[in-house]
Formats: sequence, C-alpha cells, structure tokens
Amino acid sequence: MELAKIGERELISHIAKSFSKGKDTVIIGAGEDDCAVLDMGGEDYLLVTTDMLHEETDFPLRMTGWQIGWMSVAVNLSDLASKGARPLGVLMAMGIPSDTELLFIDEVAKGMDDCATAFGTCMIGGDTGEHDELIMAGTALGTVKKEQLVRRKGAKKGDLVCVTGIPGRAGAALLALDRKLRVSQEMLKPLFEPMPRIKEGMALVESGSVSSMMDISDGLALSLHDMSKASGLGFRIYEDKLPALPGIKGLKSRDLLDAAVFTGGDFELLFTVPEEKLGAAKKACDFTVIGEVIESGVLIERGGAVEELKAKGYEHFKHA
Amino acid sequence: MELAKIGERELISHIAKSFSKGKDTVIIGAGEDDCAVLDMGGEDYLLVTTDMLHEETDFPLRMTGWQIGWMSVAVNLSDLASKGARPLGVLMAMGIPSDTELLFIDEVAKGMDDCATAFGTCMIGGDTGEHDELIMAGTALGTVKKEQLVRRKGAKKGDLVCVTGIPGRAGAALLALDRKLRVSQEMLKPLFEPMPRIKEGMALVESGSVSSMMDISDGLALSLHDMSKASGLGFRIYEDKLPALPGIKGLKSRDLLDAAVFTGGDFELLFTVPEEKLGAAKKACDFTVIGEVIESGVLIERGGAVEELKAKGYEHFKHA
Repeated sequence: MELAKIGERELISHIAKSFSKGKDTVIIGAGEDDCAVLDMGGEDYLLVTTDMLHEETDFPLRMTGWQIGWMSVAVNLSDLASKGARPLGVLMAMGIPSDTELLFIDEVAKGMDDCATAFGTCMIGGDTGEHDELIMAGTALGTVKKEQLVRRKGAKKGDLVCVTGIPGRAGAALLALDRKLRVSQEMLKPLFEPMPRIKEGMALVESGSVSSMMDISDGLALSLHDMSKASGLGFRIYEDKLPALPGIKGLKSRDLLDAAVFTGGDFELLFTVPEEKLGAAKKACDFTVIGEVIESGVLIERGGAVEELKAKGYEHFKHA
Repeated sequence: MELAKIGERELISHIAKSFSKGKDTVIIGAGEDDCAVLDMGGEDYLLVTTDMLHEETDFPLRMTGWQIGWMSVAVNLSDLASKGARPLGVLMAMGIPSDTELLFIDEVAKGMDDCATAFGTCMIGGDTGEHDELIMAGTALGTVKKEQLVRRKGAKKGDLVCVTGIPGRAGAALLALDRKLRVSQEMLKPLFEPMPRIKEGMALVESGSVSSMMDISDGLALSLHDMSKASGLGFRIYEDKLPALPGIKGLKSRDLLDAAVFTGGDFELLFTVPEEKLGAAKKACDFTVIGEVIESGVLIERGGAVEELKAKGYEHFKHA
C-alpha cells in the first residue's frame, strides 16, 4: 500500500504502534498527544515536540524570510502551548538550497529568534545542511507542573467546549490567496505570523479548570475528531457560537464557515471545561464557549439542524 | 553572498551569533558544542541535539529501510555519546515521498526502534509530512550528572589525544562504494549501521578522566580542528599510532589514511586525557592514544616529517 492512500493521522498511529514501549519515565509517548512528556524527577514534567515545515507546502512565495523563521518556531511553540507548558528552548534543523543568499538566512534566523524571545524562550541549537528546497525541522522543549498536565483525553460528558481567539482567520487568508484576491498584509498576518497561545495555555492549566486541551493548527474539525477519539466521547458545536470572522471582499459567509471549521493554520487552543469551573477558566484568559461534550459523534448545529462535522482539514498525506 | 561560498561550520557559527543570549538555564547554547545543555535544577543537566539526514546525500541506494531508520537515530545518539549522556528519548520528523510503500516505512520505523532500544532508550514522538525526497530530522534527549559534563573545550597542553574504535572504517567503505568496488555487507556495516558510543561516553565521563570530548562523525581532521578552536590549543597526531584499518582490495594505504583522517561517517569519540589520568580512562573503555595537545596548529607526523592536517572532511555546504 502506498502512503498516498493513508491519511497522516493513520500513518502516525501506525508507526507509533510499531515502537517499543518506553520506560516508566515516558509519561506520554509517540503518537499519543501534541507533545511527548517525560518524568525526570522533580516537580515538573519535561515536554518535547517536533514539527517539520517545508517550502512547497508551508511557505507561500509571499512569505518573507522573517515570517518563515517566525512560523517555524511558532508551530512548535503551539504544541507546547496546547499542554500549557512554559517553553525552555527551541532547536531548528534547516535544509537550505545552496544558491540561497546569506541575507535571506539572516532574516530567517531573526524571525526564529524574535518568535522564541517573544514567548519567553530562546534558540538553543540546530543543524544545517544543503537541500534542494528550504526545510525547517524544529524541536521545542518546555515544562509543566506535574499536577497541571492536561492531555487530549480527559473531557467528561457535559463539559463545555471552548476555543481561544477567532478560528478561521488563517484559513480565510489562505482561501483569499488561493482565489488570488487582493489582501492586505494585515489580513495575512494570522496565516504568516501565527501567535502560539503560550500565555493562555499556561494560565489555563494553572487555573486547574481545563479537562482536556490541544491546538487547532490542523483545523477545528480535525481537532474535535482527535479529542473525540482520545476521550471516547462526542462533541457538539454551534455555528452561531463561533466567533465572527471579519468579512473579506470576495469570500461568502459559507467560505468563512469553511475557513473557521475545516482549514488549519490557526494556532488557537481548543479545550474543555467542566461547567462549574467556567468562572475560574474565564479568569485565566479570553475564550469562547462553542459547544459541549456529548455521548458520541462530532456534530455542528446550523440553523436549527444538526449535521455531522466531517474529519476534514489539514493533513500532510491526503487521502487519494 | 551565496551559501555555496560558505562552509557549514561558518554558517552555523554565523546563525548562532545572531541569536539572543539565552537565560541562565541555558548552560550551552546554539553553535557551541555537539548538544545544547540546559539546567532544569536537580543533579543532572538536560542535553538535547538535532540532526537532519536526507536521501540524496545520506542514504545511498544500497541502504535498506531498516538501516536508514537505524542511522537516523544513531547520528543523534552519537551527539549525546560525545557528552557522555544517558539517552532519555528520541523524536523523528519524517518527510516521505507519497509513492512510498507502507512496508518500507515499517522497515524504517523498525530500524529507528531497534537503534533506540539497543542504546537503552526509546522513540517518544515525531512528525510526518509529504516530501519529494526522504528526510529524517531527529532529536535526541539525554542527561548527564552536572559535575560530569565534558565539553569540546577543556583540553590542556600535554593532554593525550585519544580515539575509540578504528576511525576510517566508514570512510573506507564509502570510498569503495564511490569507486564501484565489490564490497561485502560486513564491510558496509560501519557506514550503514554506525554504533554510537553511548556506553563508552558514559563510562569515560564517569571515570572523571576526560578533559574534552566530541564525536568524529564529520571526520577526524575536522573534529581536531573543532577541538583546537574550542580549546585555543593545538593538536598533534601520529600516523603510525592510528589504529590499522583492515585492507580492502582496490584501496591503497594512502586511500586508507585519507579514510581514517579526512572522511566522516565514523561515530567514534575523540577525547583528551591528562597523562596522569590515563589509567583511570583505560578502565572505562578501549581506546587508542593517537597524539597530544600542543601549543598551536593541527599537525600529523608521518614517516618522521610533520605536516599540517587540513580542515577537510564532511561538511554539508562545501566551499566553492
């Protein structure tokens, strides 16, 4: 069987299953969550995550070198944010075409450094090699207090489903680019300069009010399916509770809904909160309640009707 | 200026200089050593390293999927070995062509898992994405007791220069492949299935006898220059002290010397030992004394004459 016939999630789960079980120090291993979690003794868990981006699919021509550097760090920090971790450091292995100008690499390095320092951490290492296409393979390390570890699983029936920010801003920008609409730099920012929710993630886990959490960088629908699979429960969200996206000339409201639900690129946090803890969560950061945890299924209520929300979104290996 | 005009070492140092200084928790940061070193409190330092390999330059067609997986983990473990670290876990971000057979990926995954478990650790995470060429970007984590941390710098004048194993075995195999000589699987093993010196690295730092250390995966000559730069001192080695390479039909003794000194691919450890601690070091593991630390220069003595040992070896960006 060729990989083109398998989705990315299925492939990761397939590979992870073939790995030997880790030692007791491995609290969360391969394929289980947004980060691996290790117990090194002490009060904190160590979290580590890796994410690889490359030119052809991740860096549109309009992106600057600085933005490429920023995004390559941000995508890794977002995985830390989704576990409420405090970042410890970032490494970047870069594959670089040999005809690249050094000044361009300087911009990329500045973008990496700016993103790391903006979120209270720094670049601590990496690797470089010659490659026909620009490749950025990042690794981020962080810590979280042991009693504050929040996983993808953990939601209980009746918990409220919540999301930070306005999902779909990156997706709407991507859609506008695909349709060759004229868009402002400002509109492209959520797509090209995503802000990992480090501060919000840390505040949420410190509030002790969150029962499960992940980021929605592959899209809201796919992430809801991930959390449903992890928790063994269902999720129902409501179209009219989704935070309204600013209109874009040339995009219809149906396009915007697609962007909000099915398109990746937003580094917002998706999490569940038991109803009685909503007040505590609200003190941690701004977010929107968009639905609730149910027995089974992943559903969206639109105009009074309930529809199944398909597991569509951003996967690196598309189903054939 | 284009990157083709800059060597890899110069590029890494250039990028690393542009990064903001880390916090006090960063003991060794970007571009300084084989691993980044973090202080998370407690008795141990946390070490982390990343290394990216790809098909075109790192995986000859004769390599099996299993060997590709093995090597991708081994190259990262070797960086841990060079600091005497105990491995904690390995992550692998994989870029995979979409027409790849799942069975091939299964072999790669088995190779990764076998290498990790062979050295007392496990695969704890990763990432997959579609790519036109197979790319393996690994990250390895490890720990070392704070008082046992050994760096690239630290050698003192008069220290003995030592190396584990037989440098050049991988290089000789590579040379034989380049010249299309018929070589046995056994001869290709050092090149395709390198053994990171985890056990030896740990034993050496525990013996407290080592003043500086690194691995020679980019070749002995380049590594001696790295240690010379780090310590601000010189190194002299002796051709007749280098462990003898087994002969290969079709390769002359001059070829073998080139393999031993200028060709990368061996995951042996290069380290310095103060003369009075040689006995303690010898109890830790097998190795060969090949020279001594001098005031300046990187020299090789051959047939009574002393030559300068050029900084030639494996660099991902070749000088034009």
